[in-house]
Amino acid sequence: MTTQTEHAISPTRAEDYPEWYQQVVRAADLAENAPVRGCMVIKPWGYAIWENIQRILDAKFRALGVRNAYFPLFIPLSFLVKEAKHVEGFAKECAVVTHHRLESDGQGGLRPAAPLEEPLVVRPTSETIIGAMFAKWVQSYRDLPLLINQWANVVRWEMRPRLFLRTAEFLWQEGHTVHATAEEAMAFARTILDLYAEFVEEYLAIPVIKGEKTESERFPGAVATFTIEAMMQDRKALQAGTSHFLGQNFAKASEIKFLGPTGREEYAWTTSWGVSTRLIGGIVMTHGDDDGLIVPPRVAPAHVAILPVIHKEEHKASVLEFCHRVKAELEAQKFDGQPVRVELDTREMRGGDKVWEWVKKGVPVRLEIGPRDVAQDAVCLGRRDKPPRHRETVPRSQFVTEISNLLAEIQSNLLARAKAFRQQHTVEINSREEFYDFFTSEDPESPEIHGGFALCHWGGDLEVEEKLKEDLQVSIRCIPLDMPAEPGRCPFTGKPSPRRLVFAKAY
Amino acid sequence: MTTQTEHAISPTRAEDYPEWYQQVVRAADLAENAPVRGCMVIKPWGYAIWENIQRILDAKFRALGVRNAYFPLFIPLSFLVKEAKHVEGFAKECAVVTHHRLESDGQGGLRPAAPLEEPLVVRPTSETIIGAMFAKWVQSYRDLPLLINQWANVVRWEMRPRLFLRTAEFLWQEGHTVHATAEEAMAFARTILDLYAEFVEEYLAIPVIKGEKTESERFPGAVATFTIEAMMQDRKALQAGTSHFLGQNFAKASEIKFLGPTGREEYAWTTSWGVSTRLIGGIVMTHGDDDGLIVPPRVAPAHVAILPVIHKEEHKASVLEFCHRVKAELEAQKFDGQPVRVELDTREMRGGDKVWEWVKKGVPVRLEIGPRDVAQDAVCLGRRDKPPRHRETVPRSQFVTEISNLLAEIQSNLLARAKAFRQQHTVEINSREEFYDFFTSEDPESPEIHGGFALCHWGGDLEVEEKLKEDLQVSIRCIPLDMPAEPGRCPFTGKPSPRRLVFAKAY
Repeated sequence: MTTQTEHAISPTRAEDYPEWYQQVVRAADLAENAPVRGCMVIKPWGYAIWENIQRILDAKFRALGVRNAYFPLFIPLSFLVKEAKHVEGFAKECAVVTHHRLESDGQGGLRPAAPLEEPLVVRPTSETIIGAMFAKWVQSYRDLPLLINQWANVVRWEMRPRLFLRTAEFLWQEGHTVHATAEEAMAFARTILDLYAEFVEEYLAIPVIKGEKTESERFPGAVATFTIEAMMQDRKALQAGTSHFLGQNFAKASEIKFLGPTGREEYAWTTSWGVSTRLIGGIVMTHGDDDGLIVPPRVAPAHVAILPVIHKEEHKASVLEFCHRVKAELEAQKFDGQPVRVELDTREMRGGDKVWEWVKKGVPVRLEIGPRDVAQDAVCLGRRDKPPRHRETVPRSQFVTEISNLLAEIQSNLLARAKAFRQQHTVEINSREEFYDFFTSEDPESPEIHGGFALCHWGGDLEVEEKLKEDLQVSIRCIPLDMPAEPGRCPFTGKPSPRRLVFAKAY
Repeated sequence: MTTQTEHAISPTRAEDYPEWYQQVVRAADLAENAPVRGCMVIKPWGYAIWENIQRILDAKFRALGVRNAYFPLFIPLSFLVKEAKHVEGFAKECAVVTHHRLESDGQGGLRPAAPLEEPLVVRPTSETIIGAMFAKWVQSYRDLPLLINQWANVVRWEMRPRLFLRTAEFLWQEGHTVHATAEEAMAFARTILDLYAEFVEEYLAIPVIKGEKTESERFPGAVATFTIEAMMQDRKALQAGTSHFLGQNFAKASEIKFLGPTGREEYAWTTSWGVSTRLIGGIVMTHGDDDGLIVPPRVAPAHVAILPVIHKEEHKASVLEFCHRVKAELEAQKFDGQPVRVELDTREMRGGDKVWEWVKKGVPVRLEIGPRDVAQDAVCLGRRDKPPRHRETVPRSQFVTEISNLLAEIQSNLLARAKAFRQQHTVEINSREEFYDFFTSEDPESPEIHGGFALCHWGGDLEVEEKLKEDLQVSIRCIPLDMPAEPGRCPFTGKPSPRRLVFAKAY
């Protein structure tokens, strides 16, 4: 592969972006399709990224006073029905358990037996079942705020599944909080949005725009949905996390009430918020290149892969000893408050293949170590933020003491590169023609990739949203929260608009 | 409560053990029944114990080279059917997904729509679906051993659910490994058994007997099932973890084959092993007393609860300041390689109620701190391994520097107490009469509690096993691995027996 083509991944991003994505996920050994339609198997390298995401987010939630708990996988149908918009939003994608036993079908196979009195839905999200518990837990204002999170699997039947981005089953965290006032609940939903934005930018090196969804894109049952939107390398938007202010909608549906300090009973105010394994898809599509995955160091399963290069048996012992020593020295160093994570790959296989495997897996730093390096007390270093063939030889002790700085530099390079890309493909648009042109004009280098983020006014008409979706598959990603409000006119209707919104194609 | 009865939990263990269990779980705020039949909600105090169990076990698995991954929740019916004994063992308790959509029932409700072509089973365990993936991942002996673990929820429909002990959905880890030889697979299954035994004894302070199951108690599809068996305070056995040597049964069912060094294709040898949230039930039933839960320090969500005792507003500032200082000083100390975990409970409620709440939650150490303690620079200390009313005043600095020793002492006291209890209720039995007497004679103090562990010979007859189950609800818990083999005769049949086995009633 390395000798026949210029790049390790075929097709390249420009040639066929969706297929490039599948190939990178495969080549990096992140995940694969399960034999169950729409479901995925997350392989160790992919799962370890998720574990790092969990560890970091969990500590941030905890610092806000959020505590973890666990709620049932199954939701009785009657619970789901309680919030009208909610059930409408999820009914089409619910997996339904109808039986609790198997029996022989008389032909050597099995069939479902023992029908349930009430069918159970496999949770697509847990507002209704958690709401039923919160109604019991909350009695008085003294019980508030109630701040709960769960790490769990959820199921939403998908017609067009794609690994990490849209799968029938996925892993996520879902936070659910109860507050005494609307203001406090709204403030908490915004605090979580800020937490998500900071995490995704600082740890995943993915720049995001914080914003609010328009009514048509809101979470079913929410009063306000806040989102972080990231730009992938095909210039489409990825919704990377959402935080919902649910008003009293779910409190009323689930009867979450509390006695206030004056003894008056009131409905509570709730929020919910989540990020999922979709973030791993975001890492692939933000940082990956035509040689495979690039994992940001702060969430990389391994920071450094050490690859002994041994051509003669006589060198084996000394090279391996040196490699073990470098591994131990690196592991005694800290990056980001954690010991540096090192993989020493002693498998017996062709050296070039091994190097390319680690390139494709996106490990931030590779060390190829052969007898000459041992003699020089040096390491031959490859950085995943530079081209794979670019290597430099560095004295061992210098490399070890500077590993943390090196990883921090790679982390910040990835973020800077992603920011520059987004900047390059974000434009202010002021006319219908410009808008249609932006989302249809072809780049001869990558004929399937169009547009980017269009900052454009909007008069508030649902018809405009629908028309743009129909004509261009473009939607309003968000009403940005951190951009200055500059009044103008909607290029589609001429109506006044208080600020530009972010329009894009999206995952 | 504290003034009306001698104990915080009613009924006591002696009065009604099963109801005592439910009341301790409730009083400690560990979990409660969900509105979905047989499912539970694990509340923050219970879930935090599970997170500690996860953290500790995960590091031990990792040290063996095991890597985490994630496999689908759903298993196609056709997969489950591949291993005949396996499906026979689980068919009666499978939740079955038959539809993937809901539609209006025309009466304001919803009903399942869009039937699946092939029903899906919600995993009761994952041998078959993981086996299907392993068949793809394993090609050559170079790919072996393959050592994989997943942390997941599983579903086994239970007719008589009990919180933690038997719930329709529970959380667990399931390890699945593939090896080139029978010997290596068997050795790995035994290594895991040792790991489980050490973990449960050293961390949960629950003494266990390591053993092998007889054929009738084997995991469906296994060649050998190893188990750790613990004695609860009602003298029943709790199977606390199992490790299975699966031979080639699942490799043949799932076509897990590899090319050996000589180029010959062979079926692989597999193992599987798991522990679950049931361990939390084991903690309750081993250590809990008539005042509630006692959590072993090494897995306690908090090691120390600091309870400010403020009767006059004028003392509030100085007492709270002192409490915060003690908290910070404790958190700078380490126990078991982790910072000491401290809860400062500043809720405004009656002091006595607050103390009893923490007693019932089983926090190892309570500090009640009032103005007099501040003046003396001391803390008033209550230990959960001593009676709740037993307190001692200790100089602050001495308490802080000795916290780690104190926690270690409590941990070892709990284990010693549990070992003594087991010892007291373990007897060698040599005749049918003794056996029946042991499992039926009444203790006037606790009329519902009988027996214990009977070490008794067995001639190998299935009929004997069945008869004892029918007459006494007693089963063979295991063929112990670490007790000396002493030949004898089966008291039921007179047949020769190579060693005594462990008989008990069980959960």
